[in-house]
Amino acid sequence: MPETATATRRGANWEARREAIIDTSARVFAHGGYHGTGIAELCEANDLGKGALYHYIGSKEELLEAIHDRVMDEVLKAADRVAESTAPAAERLTAIGTDLLSIMERYPDHVWVFLHEFPALTGARAKKFRQRRRSFESAVEQVIVDGIASGEFRDVDPRLAMLGWYGMFNYTYLWLRPDGKLAAHEVAERFADLFLNGLSIHGIHA
Amino acid sequence: MPETATATRRGANWEARREAIIDTSARVFAHGGYHGTGIAELCEANDLGKGALYHYIGSKEELLEAIHDRVMDEVLKAADRVAESTAPAAERLTAIGTDLLSIMERYPDHVWVFLHEFPALTGARAKKFRQRRRSFESAVEQVIVDGIASGEFRDVDPRLAMLGWYGMFNYTYLWLRPDGKLAAHEVAERFADLFLNGLSIHGIHA
Repeated sequence: MPETATATRRGANWEARREAIIDTSARVFAHGGYHGTGIAELCEANDLGKGALYHYIGSKEELLEAIHDRVMDEVLKAADRVAESTAPAAERLTAIGTDLLSIMERYPDHVWVFLHEFPALTGARAKKFRQRRRSFESAVEQVIVDGIASGEFRDVDPRLAMLGWYGMFNYTYLWLRPDGKLAAHEVAERFADLFLNGLSIHGIHA
Repeated sequence: MPETATATRRGANWEARREAIIDTSARVFAHGGYHGTGIAELCEANDLGKGALYHYIGSKEELLEAIHDRVMDEVLKAADRVAESTAPAAERLTAIGTDLLSIMERYPDHVWVFLHEFPALTGARAKKFRQRRRSFESAVEQVIVDGIASGEFRDVDPRLAMLGWYGMFNYTYLWLRPDGKLAAHEVAERFADLFLNGLSIHGIHA
């Protein structure tokens, strides 16, 4: 039975409980690994019997997909905002970086699982994940393409620049913490400055 | 028995066989995850019985440590080279990025395991790993500190700039492939240019 059909029939309580299970399980996977975590451990962490767990989640892989979606839904909303914006490219790139780091700060366990365990998704779930990731990458790349076209940015390889930007921002999942010295938006602001203006004082613009 | 003492007594054949086991096991862990891979699977992949495997590797965790070391030995050699160099900071930063991507291109499985499974190391092994990683990060940060002191680089937060650089270069493990469109040294060159000179044509230097 498609999950959406099920979800429609279940109502808000079921949805809220399911979301709590997704968040708890993200923490469990983040610590024990997806392959290393069994249904029994998920039941224990969620204080549910096996039958009750399956009432909310069809399978371990569906749970992994739901953890991905919880992050990707927000990431893609940020991508939509940047695609609709008519601001200068530098401003749009700064905005999407700020949104991305805000998501990473709020969902550290989900992001950890997301970035480490995506190869465990199979079939249609793997395909959907690849499409959603590509969709985000394209949105960032389009900002760079637009900036080059408008003369704001240098004439670089847009895909490679996107990958560099992506690495710089995404890799913060290893150290960005809500109680860190800098807030996510401060890190995003400084990274945007570095990425746009470079480290060198001479630069090639001098 | 300390591993070094053992290694000294064993000789070159034992060393070569152990290295092959490390490389094969890196591939197995990269695909199945560290927690999800049992000794039986490692035996099968290495075509060895359990006793024979333990003749080369004391434990699964020792194997994980050896996979780390195989990458970190080279990474730290690159860090030493950059620390000893008297070239301008921009040149040194470019050189260490080129070395790093060359290592990542040559050891994709090791790096995957290295970056995903380091939390599985415990006790003295976890401590050693943290020290070695910090040692590399410090070497990169020192180049940035030197560049700021010499007036080559802008007066940014050196640690944050190092973390941005590190993300940009390290995150290539997800897409850098020996048969890719660009060779590792070409990616390193373009990333160094982006990081040093920035994406913006106006920049703050104009």
